[in-house]
Amino acid sequence: MIAVHLENGAVAIRTLPVPRRPEGFALLRLLAGGICNTDLELQRGYYAFAGTPGHEFVAEVVETLTPALTGKRVSGEINLACTHCEWCRQGLGRHCPNRTVLGIVGHPGAFAEFFTLPERNLHVLPDDIPTSRAVFLEPLAAACEILDQVAIPPGAPIAVLGDGKLGLLIAMVLNDHGYRVHQFGRHAAKLAIAARVGVVTQLSTGALPIAAYDWVVDATGSPEGLRSAAAMARPRGTVILKSTVHGAVPVDTAPIIVNELTLVGSRCGRFAAALPLLRHPLVRVEDLIAARFPLAEAPQAFAHAAEQGVLKVLLE
Amino acid sequence: MIAVHLENGAVAIRTLPVPRRPEGFALLRLLAGGICNTDLELQRGYYAFAGTPGHEFVAEVVETLTPALTGKRVSGEINLACTHCEWCRQGLGRHCPNRTVLGIVGHPGAFAEFFTLPERNLHVLPDDIPTSRAVFLEPLAAACEILDQVAIPPGAPIAVLGDGKLGLLIAMVLNDHGYRVHQFGRHAAKLAIAARVGVVTQLSTGALPIAAYDWVVDATGSPEGLRSAAAMARPRGTVILKSTVHGAVPVDTAPIIVNELTLVGSRCGRFAAALPLLRHPLVRVEDLIAARFPLAEAPQAFAHAAEQGVLKVLLE
Repeated sequence: MIAVHLENGAVAIRTLPVPRRPEGFALLRLLAGGICNTDLELQRGYYAFAGTPGHEFVAEVVETLTPALTGKRVSGEINLACTHCEWCRQGLGRHCPNRTVLGIVGHPGAFAEFFTLPERNLHVLPDDIPTSRAVFLEPLAAACEILDQVAIPPGAPIAVLGDGKLGLLIAMVLNDHGYRVHQFGRHAAKLAIAARVGVVTQLSTGALPIAAYDWVVDATGSPEGLRSAAAMARPRGTVILKSTVHGAVPVDTAPIIVNELTLVGSRCGRFAAALPLLRHPLVRVEDLIAARFPLAEAPQAFAHAAEQGVLKVLLE
Repeated sequence: MIAVHLENGAVAIRTLPVPRRPEGFALLRLLAGGICNTDLELQRGYYAFAGTPGHEFVAEVVETLTPALTGKRVSGEINLACTHCEWCRQGLGRHCPNRTVLGIVGHPGAFAEFFTLPERNLHVLPDDIPTSRAVFLEPLAAACEILDQVAIPPGAPIAVLGDGKLGLLIAMVLNDHGYRVHQFGRHAAKLAIAARVGVVTQLSTGALPIAAYDWVVDATGSPEGLRSAAAMARPRGTVILKSTVHGAVPVDTAPIIVNELTLVGSRCGRFAAALPLLRHPLVRVEDLIAARFPLAEAPQAFAHAAEQGVLKVLLE
């Protein structure tokens, strides 16, 4: 089979044997994968990664001992948890200290013709949801995680900083949940995607509003994001951190303390919470698709995904 | 009257007129003041401060239109709020955007023979509480603020980082509330004060425990504090930020996001919540008193308070 291989900044196609299916796992055939910023960061050397990336996917179950799964179209939770530690027992396998993570930590990813995942990680996709829509389930779950972590009063105004892929999904999800979302970004064309579903958008080329929101989401992916988000929060406000910025970022903690802000780090979410959103008309994930490449052209796909202003690139 | 004057790093004694009492204010005569780290920071130029510092105090009401206050021994809330903005209407005058702050922002402080505060800021002290104990009301309220902001399950283990004045008060207050407090600091003599009331203490000269606590309080006052506190927190844990560190501190936000930590900035608290603690035997605030100086010797008192390892210095 062919598989994408990342190592030392290079994206290559390798020919590998079809992986062995461990007990309790399903063998999956890739139908579509989405290139995420994390994949681009793995390429840059984050986690000292070398191997097959890919954790946003739709696949077909080709081998399993569970008849109900055979031949089904699925997506899957990316954390392979141990199932018996205290985190797993609480249903928080996403924080299992013994976990591996599909295409990120210790388990080969989905950007290959075939790959494996534990059957318990799989979610069967309804037939009427197109693959190009369902491939957004993982980042949609990450957006939903915000609502799992903090209780935002119904209809509250929320500022979302950043108009990248995750910022747009977050804005759409929060907007879909009835919040008054104000999205700030640097790209008119990207903001237009959110504006189409009713998000109030603003080009953040000038000054941002100060002490204006009780709820602010930083999805800029930039070191300045946290600083801007903290400045935009009202006293006692909450800033949700969705930007994974690597390395130390200079943060002035004085305004956080003086204004008694709450900062909440937020990562992966539950697929079960995100699955119903695939039917919601205000969650227009397809509008984020910038390009589609066959798996064998992954090097070109990664190069395109890394270009300034390009949103979601799919591998098929 | 004499008053302490801070300007450009120097502490001086000046002779000033007794302040005029504005309507709704009481004229107060200082009985005891406590030198706080914030006062030392004001001396170093924080807030471009020039004037009379002092916000931890016990005073006698010498002039007021409210007979019930006349001659009473009081302490007082330090934020002079506008009383009519949305924050004030919510009882959060501590965040009033129009506020001045006693001895910190726009209102002369308590390190003077006489000073003024709005009558509504005053709390009459019970006769049986010694002045040297009551002078700790303001920092005790700041310690109590943690319990006002986050709901920590009864009896939970809490790590407190830092064994300075605020760290010790926080450890004592949390210990007094039945939490299992583990305090980490660099000074055996200071930690001994907390150990005396039952706090489990540990010299943090070596490695700190990693991912070990659901609740961590950073009261180190050092830029490394936040980093250590975040590393000590378990996934989904909460770090309460009590350290005012000025300027930008390099923070690696990746562990905050990956472990979905909550960071809560925490500042001043309600005196009403702290007042009962002045009778609690496990809150041994007097043990923090390092030295007492007459007001006229404030320059020596400030110099002593700034020495390494010195806890609370009082002005009387």
